[in-house]
Amino acid sequence: MSEYPSIVLEQAVNQMASLPGVGRRTALRLVLHLLRQSDAEVEAFAGAFLRLKQEVVYCSVCHNISDTPVCPICSSTHRDHSTICVVENVQDVMSIENTGQYNGVYHVLGGVISPMEGIGPKDLEIDSLIARVATGEVQEIILALPTTMEGDTTNFYIYRRIQNNQGQSQGLKITQIARGVAVGNQLEYTDEITLGRSIVNRTEFKN
Amino acid sequence: MSEYPSIVLEQAVNQMASLPGVGRRTALRLVLHLLRQSDAEVEAFAGAFLRLKQEVVYCSVCHNISDTPVCPICSSTHRDHSTICVVENVQDVMSIENTGQYNGVYHVLGGVISPMEGIGPKDLEIDSLIARVATGEVQEIILALPTTMEGDTTNFYIYRRIQNNQGQSQGLKITQIARGVAVGNQLEYTDEITLGRSIVNRTEFKN
Repeated sequence: MSEYPSIVLEQAVNQMASLPGVGRRTALRLVLHLLRQSDAEVEAFAGAFLRLKQEVVYCSVCHNISDTPVCPICSSTHRDHSTICVVENVQDVMSIENTGQYNGVYHVLGGVISPMEGIGPKDLEIDSLIARVATGEVQEIILALPTTMEGDTTNFYIYRRIQNNQGQSQGLKITQIARGVAVGNQLEYTDEITLGRSIVNRTEFKN
Repeated sequence: MSEYPSIVLEQAVNQMASLPGVGRRTALRLVLHLLRQSDAEVEAFAGAFLRLKQEVVYCSVCHNISDTPVCPICSSTHRDHSTICVVENVQDVMSIENTGQYNGVYHVLGGVISPMEGIGPKDLEIDSLIARVATGEVQEIILALPTTMEGDTTNFYIYRRIQNNQGQSQGLKITQIARGVAVGNQLEYTDEITLGRSIVNRTEFKN
């Protein structure tokens, strides 16, 4: 006999445990929680994921998740469409939006170049970024990729691709987000590379 | 604008975050994982919970989760039906089954008496336990409830209920699982109450 008293239960546990970071014991606890909910609640739970998969689209401009062919940010007339912030994924867009400090638009690559994981430039939305730059309406590209070897490689690859299209990148500014000691952090707990860079890339003191 | 770039995404995150112990950030990560899966995989994921809710039943004898009106344990002729192990929930049945040390049957209460949470004897499968005892076929009741005040209260309540049905409990043995120092545990890290009980309830040394 299986470890589980019911095959249907076991299948539900298998599905829950297929989520990243969810072990079988946790999955069982979550499934038994669902089983205690009403029929309507379980239908709403399952239905939300079916609808997500059926209805969600990717914005044809920035490739962020969207309910509409062009996302609210890309279709907004209040945003600065001449500044594009290049990010790895959807979460990064949400994080930057939450700061309230950015009024430009985005470009979601869908990952970073990683030879180890077999992710090359063709697997990412880099060609479409180059095409957006080629329109000549873009004045600044902000590279906001993770501070990892993969992020740095991707930054450099995008930089080179834009430089190669000389004619199109006339007057185009390419920047990257500031690296340094996080606000609120003690210097003694900051890693050496970050602290070293924060000295090399020091900025003028403003009062 | 909502924090989320898509309403459908937000609804899926809300549903995922309704699971106990799943925060909104984790929920977003899990939902975006699902979004990267194929249509068929997401349908299998959602369908497993719908089927669970529609098809799973509770065994009419022991109230464990089952695919059939009477669960495989209760309908097995290889199990000792004169011994009933009383447990709080489905997980406990699975835990005891995994030990391979028990060949009797079970009775799943569905909780323990907890005035703080408003759970009284009527909310649990206690009447049905008394009815099973009343058939006269039961020779031993093993109380295997958690070692908490609620567990102890429930143990005592069941004990009293069975004692009150004097005629039916002729020759009936009521036992409880052994409390003591866990196997592999150091004495110095065992809490005082457990260690104290393990001395009071010492058993004869067998070689």
